[in-house]
Amino acid sequence: LIYTDLLPFDITGAPETREFLYRVADISATFVEKTFDRGTKILDFHQPEQLKEVLDLEIPAHPLHLDQLLHDCRDALKYQVKTGHPRFMNQLSCGLEVISLGGEWLTAAANINMFTYEIAPVFILMEQVTMRHMRKIIGYKNGDSTMAPGGSISNLYACMVARHKMFPQYKEQGLRVLPGQLVMFTSVHSHYSLKGAAATMGLGTDNLILVPVDSKGKMIPTELDRLIEEQKSKGNIPFFVCATAGTTVMGAFDPINAIADITEKHKLWFHIDGAWGGGVLLSKNTKHKMAGVERSDSLTWNPHKLMGVLLQCSTVHIKEDGLLIECNQMSADYLFQQDKPYDVNYDTGDKVIQCGRHNDIFKLWLLWRSKGDSGFEKHIDHLFEMTTYLVEKLKANTDKFELLNDEPELTNVCFWYIPYRLRSMKAGPDRCKILGEVQPILKGRMMTAGSLMIGYQPMDEHPNFFRNIISSQAVCRDDIDFMIVELYRLGYDL
Amino acid sequence: LIYTDLLPFDITGAPETREFLYRVADISATFVEKTFDRGTKILDFHQPEQLKEVLDLEIPAHPLHLDQLLHDCRDALKYQVKTGHPRFMNQLSCGLEVISLGGEWLTAAANINMFTYEIAPVFILMEQVTMRHMRKIIGYKNGDSTMAPGGSISNLYACMVARHKMFPQYKEQGLRVLPGQLVMFTSVHSHYSLKGAAATMGLGTDNLILVPVDSKGKMIPTELDRLIEEQKSKGNIPFFVCATAGTTVMGAFDPINAIADITEKHKLWFHIDGAWGGGVLLSKNTKHKMAGVERSDSLTWNPHKLMGVLLQCSTVHIKEDGLLIECNQMSADYLFQQDKPYDVNYDTGDKVIQCGRHNDIFKLWLLWRSKGDSGFEKHIDHLFEMTTYLVEKLKANTDKFELLNDEPELTNVCFWYIPYRLRSMKAGPDRCKILGEVQPILKGRMMTAGSLMIGYQPMDEHPNFFRNIISSQAVCRDDIDFMIVELYRLGYDL
Ligand SMILES: Cc1ncc(COP(=O)(O)O)c(C=O)c1O
Ligand SMILES: Cc1ncc(COP(=O)(O)O)c(C=O)c1O
Repeated sequence: LIYTDLLPFDITGAPETREFLYRVADISATFVEKTFDRGTKILDFHQPEQLKEVLDLEIPAHPLHLDQLLHDCRDALKYQVKTGHPRFMNQLSCGLEVISLGGEWLTAAANINMFTYEIAPVFILMEQVTMRHMRKIIGYKNGDSTMAPGGSISNLYACMVARHKMFPQYKEQGLRVLPGQLVMFTSVHSHYSLKGAAATMGLGTDNLILVPVDSKGKMIPTELDRLIEEQKSKGNIPFFVCATAGTTVMGAFDPINAIADITEKHKLWFHIDGAWGGGVLLSKNTKHKMAGVERSDSLTWNPHKLMGVLLQCSTVHIKEDGLLIECNQMSADYLFQQDKPYDVNYDTGDKVIQCGRHNDIFKLWLLWRSKGDSGFEKHIDHLFEMTTYLVEKLKANTDKFELLNDEPELTNVCFWYIPYRLRSMKAGPDRCKILGEVQPILKGRMMTAGSLMIGYQPMDEHPNFFRNIISSQAVCRDDIDFMIVELYRLGYDL
Repeated sequence: LIYTDLLPFDITGAPETREFLYRVADISATFVEKTFDRGTKILDFHQPEQLKEVLDLEIPAHPLHLDQLLHDCRDALKYQVKTGHPRFMNQLSCGLEVISLGGEWLTAAANINMFTYEIAPVFILMEQVTMRHMRKIIGYKNGDSTMAPGGSISNLYACMVARHKMFPQYKEQGLRVLPGQLVMFTSVHSHYSLKGAAATMGLGTDNLILVPVDSKGKMIPTELDRLIEEQKSKGNIPFFVCATAGTTVMGAFDPINAIADITEKHKLWFHIDGAWGGGVLLSKNTKHKMAGVERSDSLTWNPHKLMGVLLQCSTVHIKEDGLLIECNQMSADYLFQQDKPYDVNYDTGDKVIQCGRHNDIFKLWLLWRSKGDSGFEKHIDHLFEMTTYLVEKLKANTDKFELLNDEPELTNVCFWYIPYRLRSMKAGPDRCKILGEVQPILKGRMMTAGSLMIGYQPMDEHPNFFRNIISSQAVCRDDIDFMIVELYRLGYDL
């Protein structure tokens, strides 16, 4: 059988079509089972050149049989990293929520474009309801929201809306007609997408001012105030401040209320990048970490991170209604006609810089329906409980592990593994250098063993350290116990 | 059963997990069958307020049963527009390619992030191979490519890379330090994402110069040349020209070679927006429409349009290797460490303005494997055959239909439906006004009947007209015959 034996090519091909889809479903379901099976490796690592040899990736001249395609499917998964594995702690997006997966399957079958009510009536309404629910949790009375292909683009939206609010004329006339250089502020530990936004928007990365952080990685408000004054005195125009709620590496929360005081004083746009940490708002036990959130003008919040929704799923919320559309509207006649047979306020396409927009709502909505608010509270609490447990474990093994920060605020736990030969070595540049060299080797061993995946990086004056992320509901105490033992097994002799 | 009865919450929940996924697969497969069943309506139209009443969209406080979620799935599809229906001709992205759907299911199960080889080894290599294949078809010798969440973002990349190539200092210092105002050129009929890019990038939409088109909607090269000179004489800095290969409404191809002569003369970046038309390169019968394509510096090409891949799937190709990364690199230490245990040139994340990036390659790759190059040639040829057939039909019914353009270059067919009372009315503003009012009413009737979906819009001096798009393999001659009859049935008395 080949593709022409399926619908719509062969109109009698319904049984074969169903069979093909079921077989893909079966292969996928088997992968899901293996993902959660602790007896399975997280990955079967191959170097790129090796992998090219074992896989047939070429585009053929002529059709391949459906059997070959199913074989391709199995092969692709065979060498793929299982990001939902309970021992994959490598990224902010870990885990595999089965309900969300089901949601994405249905989304694919529906294959719609989120720009108009005409094409996506159900999903447009679903997005409205869910975004309103999120704004309510944030504490915005009204406002507006959109979903974006990732937090980086969500942050870009926030910067753009802020610029539009202060200088609407830039939209037609560009930055050069403004009375001065626009500058933005964020902490040195903020996500690199802010830098990206500054470059994209034509401000230049030099005009993204990086505010120092304290030893816990939190922005220092007095420094922010000082830097704003400094920029003003140079004749530049501050317009935007971004606080990070959950920094990428350390998981720190910038002090929202203190920053809001400063942005109010200077009348600047106050954005919170909660791409990573936003989920803490879902639990009464953790939402205090973002106390003051309702004072912000906009918020990025990625359900594809802490909430476990499949990638891509990012949201950006704006306190003032109407700004998103004012900023991004290009009024394409062919899509956003005003004489349609329904209320065109439901057409959302002119609020975004995309035209075609993937349906990212269904997998989020369905997951939220499945858990309810109470289930998501448990979800968040579980991640924090596991994190606390991990920190306790590391603290109980101070010979083998050194924490970068004794009291992580989010599920990021940053630490060094200390191999045997370093334990008696005294602190100083030599030890520091070796420490930095050892972690990547250990990471390589993890990947080869396939038993554990944790990310590492250097930061500020710190040499390479591991950043363990707990962002999957699959993680339990046993996995953390395993991790401690496994790191020791793999790293002992380094 | 609720979500906690599934993996990973209940580690014995494998059978229930599989059952849940199978049931979603079953609901989806049934939807696929209905989609291709001409006896089924394309949509069951409800006004927003009505739909809100029949659907329960709220986020509950507590978990819902899996049965309720499956019910939600069925409900969502029940009121959804079937964009794969053979009589859905409303958008540039129509159709439902079953193999691509299977690909997306597997993609969802794999749930990976395309930023590093570490996380997505198989899919990163797949993307490389497929992008190289596309560049070969374009005729770029080397070059680089990326996938983006839609053609609008792909076009944004092209503008950014062009800006970077001419003025790399903007990246750090911003636009205000440049020696003058940057200006871009595109045709008046080009896609609104170019305007979006001009606004986003801080150039301002006034600095996107719109070049006039001829009666077929093609850019007039002499006008381009004149406008470039005009901008130069004002002291502005032209840097970027976009030719559209397949305009959104009329499907026109701008004259590539003539434009290339001008961009070469003025030393400007030459981008081709082939988001819609790029697919013509896949057939020897149609690729002449883009003759000269290899002279461009960059090309946007959306597999989610003419090639029928599920949304989102867009690509942008750059002739000069290294520019994408130079332009977008922000070198985040935590992701793109240089001391990883493999060749980090395989990490693609620093080439894009996204951080998390959805895996859009698998559904494209699998579809291409299923058809081979020869199958895709047939795919494109079929769309053009159907278009020719439609045009013939409309020409055979000149009393009922008036074509905007007698010889469409792509599968866009633009026409007015002429109701009975207008047939004897003489041309002039009155007839024109009524003509413009009638088409939206007819569209409303189509939606209520659920039998046909065609988009409409006004353009230039033309009142509202229909733009019929054939972009689905499901369309056959019978559907076109049906369309002619159905338009008459619904519009006769208007
Ligand atoms: C704090 C923060 N903001 C923004 C982002 C970007 O989100 P995305 O990967 O969805 O683009 C990240 C990603 O890690 C992040 O950690
Ligand atoms: C010519 C052209 N360019 C770009 C785009 C934007 O593509 P996307 O909808 O994928 O953003 C479109 C969409 O219709 C188009 O027709």
